[in-house]
Amino acid sequence: MSEFFERLRAAARARRSQLCVGLDPDPDRISGGAAGALRFCLDIVRRTTDLAACYKPNSAFWEQYGPDGWSALAELRAGVATDIPVLLDAKRADVGSTMHAYARAAFEAIGADACTVHAYHGEDSLREFTAYTERGVYVVCRTSNPGAADLQHVVFDGRPLYLAVAALAERVNGAGNVGLVVGATAPAEIANVRAASRLPFLVPGVGAQGGDLEAAVRAAWTGDETSCLVNASRGVLYAEDPEAAARGYRDRINAVLDVVAS
Amino acid sequence: MSEFFERLRAAARARRSQLCVGLDPDPDRISGGAAGALRFCLDIVRRTTDLAACYKPNSAFWEQYGPDGWSALAELRAGVATDIPVLLDAKRADVGSTMHAYARAAFEAIGADACTVHAYHGEDSLREFTAYTERGVYVVCRTSNPGAADLQHVVFDGRPLYLAVAALAERVNGAGNVGLVVGATAPAEIANVRAASRLPFLVPGVGAQGGDLEAAVRAAWTGDETSCLVNASRGVLYAEDPEAAARGYRDRINAVLDVVAS
Repeated sequence: MSEFFERLRAAARARRSQLCVGLDPDPDRISGGAAGALRFCLDIVRRTTDLAACYKPNSAFWEQYGPDGWSALAELRAGVATDIPVLLDAKRADVGSTMHAYARAAFEAIGADACTVHAYHGEDSLREFTAYTERGVYVVCRTSNPGAADLQHVVFDGRPLYLAVAALAERVNGAGNVGLVVGATAPAEIANVRAASRLPFLVPGVGAQGGDLEAAVRAAWTGDETSCLVNASRGVLYAEDPEAAARGYRDRINAVLDVVAS
Repeated sequence: MSEFFERLRAAARARRSQLCVGLDPDPDRISGGAAGALRFCLDIVRRTTDLAACYKPNSAFWEQYGPDGWSALAELRAGVATDIPVLLDAKRADVGSTMHAYARAAFEAIGADACTVHAYHGEDSLREFTAYTERGVYVVCRTSNPGAADLQHVVFDGRPLYLAVAALAERVNGAGNVGLVVGATAPAEIANVRAASRLPFLVPGVGAQGGDLEAAVRAAWTGDETSCLVNASRGVLYAEDPEAAARGYRDRINAVLDVVAS
């Protein structure tokens, strides 16, 4: 298993936490532009550093501030304790030479430990990211939004498209640094993906998106701490007490794991 | 038809050009970091302003410079003559609330006239972009790279996935502001998409990627200037004489159109 997943496992074990905290600043809720967003998110990091196994800034929320947002994102990355990995949620996808530039942007310019990507461009495109063998690459498989079924559930050869994506992700996992993104809003689909693949899962969509946290964790968990990283963004960021909200998610996940283990 | 496509048509008619020039700086070829990239690309714009119907910076190539790259991209955008539209090739895709932020980034923070997106998240995701009715939204349909067939050619209900993507793009085209990206390396697939859809095409992949320019234009062209926007990036940027290279592409495209019209 790659250095990234070793680090993720160590961070999860040290805190007994499968929680990833999404750092997605909303200018309609946080004043002060990019500087305000950075202050706000660094405060969230400070309050949750004993509770989060990973931090996941979504690139979109920083890009909307323009160039200042990218500077803030780089500062945010530098503000996270070195023993907690940072996953840049950017969902990039393009032809090989362009993916090479995207990988440089995520892993070198920003210094992310892992990044999300889309598989639509196929194997040669994904390999530009997986070539960074010490970093993690999460391939978007089954998403958490209402439109997910429009294309992802298209069936061919008796299986939905999202399982073809999972199979493609397996093909580029030679270095053991590939995971899958499977949304918590569809626990049945998580179970389908888990039946087909032992890759580590990133599970977004709990909290504001209404995913079923308990069912999602039961479907994703394999017994290894990298198997099920559950992301909450708005449910922590905009809680009255973000620390208590993060602890609440962590404890709800651990309660499921206690039942599974017993 | 949307304001974006009206502007694109006017720019193409004024120059009798279907050429889009891709502005994708490569730090291995251009010295001076983000400032060097900006200087280099502004010089390309200056040399080709009578030959290009559109400019297409690919976000990846600017992101790899970090925050300075985003500042340079914003300056580049401001440096293009107001009668030539700027298409930000960013290929974004995420859940609705995140796509809302990506649309803000592309259309407000950068001020792009159009943007490329992926359809994997489905209809609700795409609508966050198409809601900017005066801007253009190109949905990635059939790509120009070797791995394109891995997922895009998966067949269900007797048709390949890329045609399902084209159908989804049609569904979100209520404001007439949607186009498709179909790579020049696959003229047969361009013809398939054109048989299924009259949406405007952006056709990348000529030049360095080895696409068949003439066959691609014949397959894409409908008689309307928005129907076939052919992109060349490396083939212009790194030519000994970029102006001559751009003129060469423009003239080759026009030669095909002359034959088709006769």
